[in-house]
Amino acid sequence: KMDRPSTKPPSGFRDFTPAESAQRVDLTEKIGRAYRAFGFQQILTPACENLSTLQGKGGGTDNEKLIFRILRRGDDLGRALEKSRATGESADLADMGLRFDLTLPLARYVSELRGEIALPFKVFQLGSVWRADRPQKGRFREFVQCDVDMVGAEAPGAEIDCLGAIHSVFEAVGVEGVEFHINDRRLLLAIGKKFGFEAEEWTKILVSLDKFDKIGRDGVVAELEKWLAADKVASGFLDDILGSHPDLKHYQDLHPEAVGSVAEIVSSLTELGARAVFNASLVRGQDYYTGTIFEARHPAIPGSLAGGGRYDGLLSVFGGPPTPAFGGSIGFERLLMILAEKPEALAKRAPDVFLPLLDSKLRNEILRIAKELRERGLSVDVYPQAAKLKNQFKYADSRGCPFTLILGEDEFNKGIAKVKDVRTSTETEYPLSALAEKLENLCRDR
Amino acid sequence: KMDRPSTKPPSGFRDFTPAESAQRVDLTEKIGRAYRAFGFQQILTPACENLSTLQGKGGGTDNEKLIFRILRRGDDLGRALEKSRATGESADLADMGLRFDLTLPLARYVSELRGEIALPFKVFQLGSVWRADRPQKGRFREFVQCDVDMVGAEAPGAEIDCLGAIHSVFEAVGVEGVEFHINDRRLLLAIGKKFGFEAEEWTKILVSLDKFDKIGRDGVVAELEKWLAADKVASGFLDDILGSHPDLKHYQDLHPEAVGSVAEIVSSLTELGARAVFNASLVRGQDYYTGTIFEARHPAIPGSLAGGGRYDGLLSVFGGPPTPAFGGSIGFERLLMILAEKPEALAKRAPDVFLPLLDSKLRNEILRIAKELRERGLSVDVYPQAAKLKNQFKYADSRGCPFTLILGEDEFNKGIAKVKDVRTSTETEYPLSALAEKLENLCRDR
Repeated sequence: KMDRPSTKPPSGFRDFTPAESAQRVDLTEKIGRAYRAFGFQQILTPACENLSTLQGKGGGTDNEKLIFRILRRGDDLGRALEKSRATGESADLADMGLRFDLTLPLARYVSELRGEIALPFKVFQLGSVWRADRPQKGRFREFVQCDVDMVGAEAPGAEIDCLGAIHSVFEAVGVEGVEFHINDRRLLLAIGKKFGFEAEEWTKILVSLDKFDKIGRDGVVAELEKWLAADKVASGFLDDILGSHPDLKHYQDLHPEAVGSVAEIVSSLTELGARAVFNASLVRGQDYYTGTIFEARHPAIPGSLAGGGRYDGLLSVFGGPPTPAFGGSIGFERLLMILAEKPEALAKRAPDVFLPLLDSKLRNEILRIAKELRERGLSVDVYPQAAKLKNQFKYADSRGCPFTLILGEDEFNKGIAKVKDVRTSTETEYPLSALAEKLENLCRDR
Repeated sequence: KMDRPSTKPPSGFRDFTPAESAQRVDLTEKIGRAYRAFGFQQILTPACENLSTLQGKGGGTDNEKLIFRILRRGDDLGRALEKSRATGESADLADMGLRFDLTLPLARYVSELRGEIALPFKVFQLGSVWRADRPQKGRFREFVQCDVDMVGAEAPGAEIDCLGAIHSVFEAVGVEGVEFHINDRRLLLAIGKKFGFEAEEWTKILVSLDKFDKIGRDGVVAELEKWLAADKVASGFLDDILGSHPDLKHYQDLHPEAVGSVAEIVSSLTELGARAVFNASLVRGQDYYTGTIFEARHPAIPGSLAGGGRYDGLLSVFGGPPTPAFGGSIGFERLLMILAEKPEALAKRAPDVFLPLLDSKLRNEILRIAKELRERGLSVDVYPQAAKLKNQFKYADSRGCPFTLILGEDEFNKGIAKVKDVRTSTETEYPLSALAEKLENLCRDR
């Protein structure tokens, strides 16, 4: 007896049922439509990138440690194995890796096709990314990101357009209560400078500040006191960032340009119907951010529903001139979590009509009617074989079709069809000649 | 100066421009709609599978050699490296691989979720697969497959539904001249038996017969003569398969059930408006096929545009009872090649309206108008900054928007907007109050 392979997907990976898949595909299409309505264009890049691309300075983050690496093949693998045996190192065994985000592939793409791209390049991406994270509840090794970026445009125009597009996604799926938190890295840097911190020291302080929402001010102070001199902790910078200054004006002299930019972003987002606030304590992890940073938050979930920032330096990693760029990403899996509470927001996509096969001799007649209905835009599920009617109806129930057609030899001889409305359990007879139009109207009204 | 990573995708992988991506996404959505109209439901499975799944007996083909393997991580990798150093083998360095088709993941999925799935399970998948093929013109290492399958239904019902759905895809995108070639593995086996060939010998003969369309009858004979006794080559089986018997009746006594099934499939496909023929010389490579096999052919491309077959034995590889199953796959990249000749078949998705920003002070007014247009279903591309008008128009040209709005301070003061129809270069003035409705009508007509 041969070994049976496991029927489970690999640890941290998921199969999606038809109901889950329909929701995921519908949400993807809705996000695409919303981004396109703002004039953004979709691009597709490969799942695999050269390791040198993924490990370049552009990555520069913890994500590099989470790359799924792809083994070399053929003679290349043989040579790499020999080398590995000699050196004890495994670094050269792989030549490619699965992408861990969509920003780095975008930077590579823009650098490669620079000459053919009209700037500003308004671009979106909807695709899977892979991270070799330890699998745990709610964290997966394959998940979808929904990035929207503008390359070649300065603040605040790019920010307003990208965040407007993200806001329109939330509107399109009926998610309310989202709040955009806006800050600017230049403000954070200016505060560090004002209080006389060294660059490295300040970076370390920002890591603790980034946890403010989770651990509170006392938590941040406790973390800082472990390594920072007490007088420095008490020097007032915490009041400057976490204090009672929701008013941007407080920071006006510190960095007028950043303050002006944040003010315009907040004003324009408000104009578009979004809730937007300045948040001096917003830090964001990625160290390639150079200006605006943002998060979209929702009361139903911890962390953020969307996030991103300006990365004016990232494209020069691949050569070419420095290029302004801003982008954000919607957390697809988190948005789905919120939408789970609103089952009507996403399409279930059950077929409109179920057509049992009462007698296999009638197959071609049944197919002709199914074709006519499909030509009117209805989806029609025909049972593939003349099984017991009870079994066919049980199957139809599992699919959730609102209408079932009864079309046996009797009905064909009389030139009629019975339409059963499954929701009300009522049956109505129609002449075959009028059937398609009737059903189209019934389905349009549902 | 630091090393610059390459800006190219890995060899055999592709970036897609916005125009190409729009076509790919549009075609994917159209295929999904057509499959759904036949009552098939989409499922999503992971890009990565356990190597034991991919290398199980189910694969059983050359595709196994083409798996991109994913390196183990952390301590597991350390242990595997040690083992590899001791044995010289690399087999244990990887624990997962990228899927090379969508059939094997479907078989695993159905086996895993057997209890929750109502049979017949009408299912479709649209997704990337990866093969470590040597890159060459027209052959890529990442490409899309569009599978439609029915699990738990016998011939010919499952066949008629799946092939009908595939035919409806060709109809939906306006590809004409497709011909479905139908055969049955059971017929091929019966012919081998009739002429007294051993199973192994016959399998080898079928490999040559599979090339009939490429090398012709003389080519097949030449291949066979290299290893098969002359009297066997001349025994008449070639006439039986390649001869003048397009008529199924010739094979009636050989395998009545297979002949009846093929006849019904051809008849029902014809009923659905497809061109379908019996083709006794169709072989198909996969050795897991047990009954019906098919190919859809188009005069513009060599090889096939779609193909598949019945694989009643594949699901038992994962345990559980034998389960009838049939499926087919459309060659996405080949279908795109044919559609390249029909640029109108797929959506280009240029924004409907371009809105230049003449003065950054007007941004919020411009955003308000863009919002109003978007609420009417139009896509509107707003320029992100108040650049030179010449540059803004140059950008609009590159996007191909049919309408441009002129809305400066003058226009706002007068309460009007100028609409430029880019295709006719005509300019019309509308009052702002009527603008959205007018533009909606103009765009609906385009």
